[in-house]
Amino acid sequence: MTDSPTRGYTTKQADYVKRLRRIEGQVRGVQRMVEEDAYCIDVLTQVSAITKALQAVAIGLLDEHVRHCVKNAVTDGDAERLEQMVTEATKAIERLVKA
Amino acid sequence: MTDSPTRGYTTKQADYVKRLRRIEGQVRGVQRMVEEDAYCIDVLTQVSAITKALQAVAIGLLDEHVRHCVKNAVTDGDAERLEQMVTEATKAIERLVKA
Amino acid sequence: MTDSPTRGYTTKQADYVKRLRRIEGQVRGVQRMVEEDAYCIDVLTQVSAITKALQAVAIGLLDEHVRHCVKNAVTDGDAERLEQMVTEATKAIERLVKA
Amino acid sequence: MTDSPTRGYTTKQADYVKRLRRIEGQVRGVQRMVEEDAYCIDVLTQVSAITKALQAVAIGLLDEHVRHCVKNAVTDGDAERLEQMVTEATKAIERLVKA
Repeated sequence: MTDSPTRGYTTKQADYVKRLRRIEGQVRGVQRMVEEDAYCIDVLTQVSAITKALQAVAIGLLDEHVRHCVKNAVTDGDAERLEQMVTEATKAIERLVKA
Repeated sequence: MTDSPTRGYTTKQADYVKRLRRIEGQVRGVQRMVEEDAYCIDVLTQVSAITKALQAVAIGLLDEHVRHCVKNAVTDGDAERLEQMVTEATKAIERLVKA
Repeated sequence: MTDSPTRGYTTKQADYVKRLRRIEGQVRGVQRMVEEDAYCIDVLTQVSAITKALQAVAIGLLDEHVRHCVKNAVTDGDAERLEQMVTEATKAIERLVKA
Repeated sequence: MTDSPTRGYTTKQADYVKRLRRIEGQVRGVQRMVEEDAYCIDVLTQVSAITKALQAVAIGLLDEHVRHCVKNAVTDGDAERLEQMVTEATKAIERLVKA
């Protein structure tokens, strides 16, 4: 359906949106916890869970993106675009690891 | 003023709720990006920003919590409760570092 | 034996040195892997293991440090020094989480 | 020049070995700090610096690995091997992010 070679996560799009909605709900839950003066350590446990869920989404998206780019590259033989893709992906990984 | 010795983040409560609301908005933004088939690397950049913002909230909450516990401990001289606080805080830090 | 209130990891000192020696050996192992042209993914697995081991040492040292400071504070009732300790510890946690 | 399609970091091999040697020296430095009862927070600062240096090496190796694999795939048109490479790389990234 899509003609874009670099948007590789459409196949599981609905799944990612669902996971992000759950994460949104978890963030709202943390807001409530803070408002209701919940025990700090419980709030932190929840924040760690959200961070993990976000990282898992990010890694899933990255996996699909690279897979998609690489598949197109084998078809197109476009080595230069692939070089650019790797450079971009590496920078994204760097930001994820440092976040 | 407070009767709870272990809920140390009430002073900046409103600020944390505001930051968490902004984070909630960012998560919704990422949902939209995925739905609208945005470029994957841009989605990842946004996810990294959210993760950073969440970690900053967590570290802020932990700082206030420990500060609060420690202040009470000097007043109360309750060494045992402090030992327990440190054990809990360490486990929370471990989860944050690993998340 | 020590008269310093802020050097709280002496009790398990030998254990930490042993763990750091193992980490040193693991880093040397990675050097050899790179020199011998080992498979990249295996090198990365090893680097992740070293990072985890280092983080565990850091969290252990931090735990003992805070425990030690807090114990002294209850004895001394020195609230100001504790405030400073928490500020320092928070900054250290921030660096660990971001590393 | 190389006959191995999956060992993509040979070009900068010497540079990586040098960086790993520096990291090894830093780990030895931390051992000394612990033995000499250095201030805990200074030890943690050093551990964070080592972790960062290790992560940078890992990201560099991964970048070269993926670049190398992808280059060969365009030449060979071996889509299946690439799929496997992406799966492996994703798992390695996951371990790095979680470490």
